[in-house]
Amino acid sequence: MIKLNTKPLTREAFAPFGDVIEKADAQSFPINNGHCIRFHDLANIETIGDTARSMISIFSSKPYSLPLHLEMVERHPLGSQAFVPLSKDPFLVIACKDNNGIPDIPQAFIATNWQGINFKKNTWHGVLTPLVDVSDFLVVDRGGEGNNLEQYFFDEPYMIGSNLI
Amino acid sequence: MIKLNTKPLTREAFAPFGDVIEKADAQSFPINNGHCIRFHDLANIETIGDTARSMISIFSSKPYSLPLHLEMVERHPLGSQAFVPLSKDPFLVIACKDNNGIPDIPQAFIATNWQGINFKKNTWHGVLTPLVDVSDFLVVDRGGEGNNLEQYFFDEPYMIGSNLI
Repeated sequence: MIKLNTKPLTREAFAPFGDVIEKADAQSFPINNGHCIRFHDLANIETIGDTARSMISIFSSKPYSLPLHLEMVERHPLGSQAFVPLSKDPFLVIACKDNNGIPDIPQAFIATNWQGINFKKNTWHGVLTPLVDVSDFLVVDRGGEGNNLEQYFFDEPYMIGSNLI
Repeated sequence: MIKLNTKPLTREAFAPFGDVIEKADAQSFPINNGHCIRFHDLANIETIGDTARSMISIFSSKPYSLPLHLEMVERHPLGSQAFVPLSKDPFLVIACKDNNGIPDIPQAFIATNWQGINFKKNTWHGVLTPLVDVSDFLVVDRGGEGNNLEQYFFDEPYMIGSNLI
């Protein structure tokens, strides 16, 4: 079984897969007579198709333990998918580059301190993976007609987070 | 000065103005092999215009004290605007029905326990109003060309939250 380490989630490291949703280093400007700061336009929302629209949902997930045995990744060909935690607990973010329709070796990031992420459309990624407790996430993704889910099962699972145990 | 009381935020009471974003009584179904519950499609996102798109931003606002002197409300003719708190602190939600282009008497709600809200397009509302501390909110609203802001200043301010002091 191939063991993979995690790394901190940064905009630069995550750029091939999408956006990191956080205030740090974001474009911002004051609104409401200076009472409020708007950290502006933090994710590129993609919705493909004539019937497509953006949706807001809440995902409430049980936690996972590390090291994680990663057996499957998935992707959404027709839209981006954003996850923003409604708690300060860290969560695991897994993404893969694509290699002729097959996911490449996974990369694993630890999101901390309220960081959210937005996967680009058609980006291989692991399912939502909180690490500490049952956790709620605000999700912005695509609604509409068409098959927006593809899954890939690895021949052999990866062991993720070997550096954190 | 007209004094107005607040009321709890419920889907039924808020329906004329938009959606309450919360898990309670939402459509839901299991995903990720039962590890996660998806509380599905909690807000009607509206983006009007050929160049329109949905945006995700973070608003970080200083708190306000009650009673609040409400001098102004605003509306966004071209899109909905959703606010979800990134803390469990309550916040104040003000909305008005429209009366021939003029906002009617404001209604004031106290959002608690992670409740978020989504204002329908062209709905008169107060600015983001946390009550406890400097607070971050995830915001989903519209980007694109066109004037998407209208403000209305009342002849005399309302005093909101007289029942909470």
